[in-house]
Amino acid sequence: MYEKSDHFKQIDPLFHPRSIAVVGESSSGKIGPGFLEAHINQGFSGKLYAINPKGQVKNYETYPTLAEVPGPVDHVVISVRAEFLKQVIEDCVKKKVRSAAMFTSGFREWEGERGAEKEAEILVMAQKSGLRLIGPNCMGFYCPDSGLSYRTDMPTLKNGKISIISQSGGVAMTPVYAAAEMGMGFAKSISYGNEVDLGAVDFLSYLAEDPDTQVICMYIEGTRQGDALRTAMKKAASAKPLLVIKGGRTDSGSRAVVSHTGAMAGSHRMWEAVCRQTGAILVNDIGEMLDVAKLALFSKKPAGRRMGIVSVSGGLGVMFTDLFTLNGFEVPKFSESLRNDLKQWVDLPGTSIRNPLDMATAFFSMGTHPQLFTRLGQADNLDIIVVVLAMEYLGSGNMPGGEVTNYFLHVLADSFDKVEKPLVVIFPETTKAKDRLDMERFLIRRGYPVFPDVARCAKALNHVLNNSPQEA
Amino acid sequence: MYEKSDHFKQIDPLFHPRSIAVVGESSSGKIGPGFLEAHINQGFSGKLYAINPKGQVKNYETYPTLAEVPGPVDHVVISVRAEFLKQVIEDCVKKKVRSAAMFTSGFREWEGERGAEKEAEILVMAQKSGLRLIGPNCMGFYCPDSGLSYRTDMPTLKNGKISIISQSGGVAMTPVYAAAEMGMGFAKSISYGNEVDLGAVDFLSYLAEDPDTQVICMYIEGTRQGDALRTAMKKAASAKPLLVIKGGRTDSGSRAVVSHTGAMAGSHRMWEAVCRQTGAILVNDIGEMLDVAKLALFSKKPAGRRMGIVSVSGGLGVMFTDLFTLNGFEVPKFSESLRNDLKQWVDLPGTSIRNPLDMATAFFSMGTHPQLFTRLGQADNLDIIVVVLAMEYLGSGNMPGGEVTNYFLHVLADSFDKVEKPLVVIFPETTKAKDRLDMERFLIRRGYPVFPDVARCAKALNHVLNNSPQEA
Repeated sequence: MYEKSDHFKQIDPLFHPRSIAVVGESSSGKIGPGFLEAHINQGFSGKLYAINPKGQVKNYETYPTLAEVPGPVDHVVISVRAEFLKQVIEDCVKKKVRSAAMFTSGFREWEGERGAEKEAEILVMAQKSGLRLIGPNCMGFYCPDSGLSYRTDMPTLKNGKISIISQSGGVAMTPVYAAAEMGMGFAKSISYGNEVDLGAVDFLSYLAEDPDTQVICMYIEGTRQGDALRTAMKKAASAKPLLVIKGGRTDSGSRAVVSHTGAMAGSHRMWEAVCRQTGAILVNDIGEMLDVAKLALFSKKPAGRRMGIVSVSGGLGVMFTDLFTLNGFEVPKFSESLRNDLKQWVDLPGTSIRNPLDMATAFFSMGTHPQLFTRLGQADNLDIIVVVLAMEYLGSGNMPGGEVTNYFLHVLADSFDKVEKPLVVIFPETTKAKDRLDMERFLIRRGYPVFPDVARCAKALNHVLNNSPQEA
Repeated sequence: MYEKSDHFKQIDPLFHPRSIAVVGESSSGKIGPGFLEAHINQGFSGKLYAINPKGQVKNYETYPTLAEVPGPVDHVVISVRAEFLKQVIEDCVKKKVRSAAMFTSGFREWEGERGAEKEAEILVMAQKSGLRLIGPNCMGFYCPDSGLSYRTDMPTLKNGKISIISQSGGVAMTPVYAAAEMGMGFAKSISYGNEVDLGAVDFLSYLAEDPDTQVICMYIEGTRQGDALRTAMKKAASAKPLLVIKGGRTDSGSRAVVSHTGAMAGSHRMWEAVCRQTGAILVNDIGEMLDVAKLALFSKKPAGRRMGIVSVSGGLGVMFTDLFTLNGFEVPKFSESLRNDLKQWVDLPGTSIRNPLDMATAFFSMGTHPQLFTRLGQADNLDIIVVVLAMEYLGSGNMPGGEVTNYFLHVLADSFDKVEKPLVVIFPETTKAKDRLDMERFLIRRGYPVFPDVARCAKALNHVLNNSPQEA
């Protein structure tokens, strides 16, 4: 992937406009999505214009029409009512704008066939000057590195490595917020709506080559280009992990899709088969998608399914051993030699060193952790180390609150660094959920995937372990 | 259940001791579980004594031996090393103590057969005076109404309606913390450990009759009284929902059980059958247990599987419709007459009124909510109303932060009150997770079960809907 394709060279500049105009931002400033402010919050460093014939928009540089903007305009965000869209596109064509993201809705998804005809007219107009269209009925582009955004409160984390393309605006936003909550950024989020011009196939092919994207997520409701999409999915999935949520897999869901983006949904089984054949990973919801992304970003693929479980609680150790086993993993007995070594650090009533390693109070002998985890990482019959944390044990008893807990977490993370195997953390949301969130962020920043329960961890690991494309 | 059994009359007083002595609390006060402080924090209003031959324990009323305590001692908590346990039990017998909870470990679970023999000796001694034993290797009793507790930071919520019995101390605590985090209290938590005397059968039978307990949870690793336990489970499950986590259902989990409580585990299939036959609900982990408890406490059992879904986001509406359908629920099209009524309140591009009801921006027309939800609750072809919330839509756009959001939540809850059907809320943990937790607590206090995703909601609903005991 040293030489980029022509397709990549066409699309990539759209994410790096030198100037942006927003058409239809309210002059009163009372209601509206706030595209102008969103770009400012995201640190957009180019020229930013408000277009409004009714007068000044707040303190933005405002012009009545696009034609009157003095310099060039690379990208336009359109937020006018449906009946005015055509005029704005005409203005974009005259101004030789490169791309337009159409937030405006009320086409195919609202009026069916009649809406689709209006979309087709717009496309014909745009093609006169090579204007590329995103939408209508979409949020457009979010790209923190170049300062693109579509909501005022979108996260501003830079250098994220996940990207998403989504037919739904909501599903383009929600994963970005959710990932940021854990301290993980997105490289790009692309909400493409009714795809009158650019759509899933174009953006998927682009992201497959995008050096800033390490994991691709896709939310799709339907497509009018089945074969091309399959080819694009295959290409993308062979380049990097491709995680897919398919909206409208069931009859009822499919009925909902028609009202939502006017797409044809296609059956559940068909989409399962397409994902299997292309090597894409079909996930059920946003949480599952981010769980797999987290694993894919942080952990090399485990060599197998044999787990070493480290726990501070006997009951949780037992329960989690059961659940991983029921989910297709093995929790093999530690070798004689490993147990002999572990005895140096864990040897008290209440502890157990067979696997799970139930450390009980030995969990708080912080000095022993680096050696203990180094040794666990060397075990021949283990492929993954699972560490079970629990807020009710951290910072508990006579440990005076947060400071010790933070020190303890640092010691833990330093010890995890010594494990030369994939390591995952299960950190249930029980007590002190707000503190837990800070600790989860810390561990994720240190590169360790954290899950709230075994079910989610096992599901994500199973996706990663089972994923290998089959021939169609 | 107007006339209580003799068994109930024997056990119930153990939860209402007039005086408690703690043996083995460190005089230096540096290390130790803090049973004395735990009882004070929980508001225990009887007499509380520290027993320590080495001198004063902090500023507690301290005596060198039990014999020297001036008044009667109803309950003793024993936290001495294993080799001193026998002597303390002898003192309890002489003092005519009613019950002793033995935190002390290092018996069956640590020394196997030899430990079991020591336990048997203790039992023989206790029976001389009718002293009832809990443990060893247990945390004992937590009962906020009477001020019993075993950890200094245990929640102090009164009038909780869930109770748990657990062979594991950790699993006796964790659900209590987790429920309190959501504002739900526990009536009793009983950690019974190696059950030398009182154990699962006794406490289960007791809770079946306990008027303070509406839902019974049980974590069990193994039993030496299979038939009696089955009978007790059947009796309990016919009185109220009985939710069971079985530790050691797999070979690996079972190996872990031996090290943890020295019990024999029994196979996965056997426990599945026992739960099915007795009408108990077998759940996988603590989260699932609390999910089912939440539903059982708050919602009457739905009449069927037909859902009406209300969402503010089209993509989430589609996705959740799919997931509920894939989990065995129906999302039927709204009737003609319902849709005609809904049009009054929801009729804009971006909305849809077919089911899911995709309200988009109409979600924020708060004035219409009471009528809209009243009408939804009257729909003939719906059994459950599902409301999908999402933090990224609440308090977003131009709504100025928390105050509007709180007002909005109050309006929502007032409108939910008008729905004469079970109503559940899905409130994903995406952005602003810390704020979300406060809102979840508010909705739960108002009596509405909240779930973080469809998978957990569907699983809990399926447990409740499928649960009807079969003949053995």
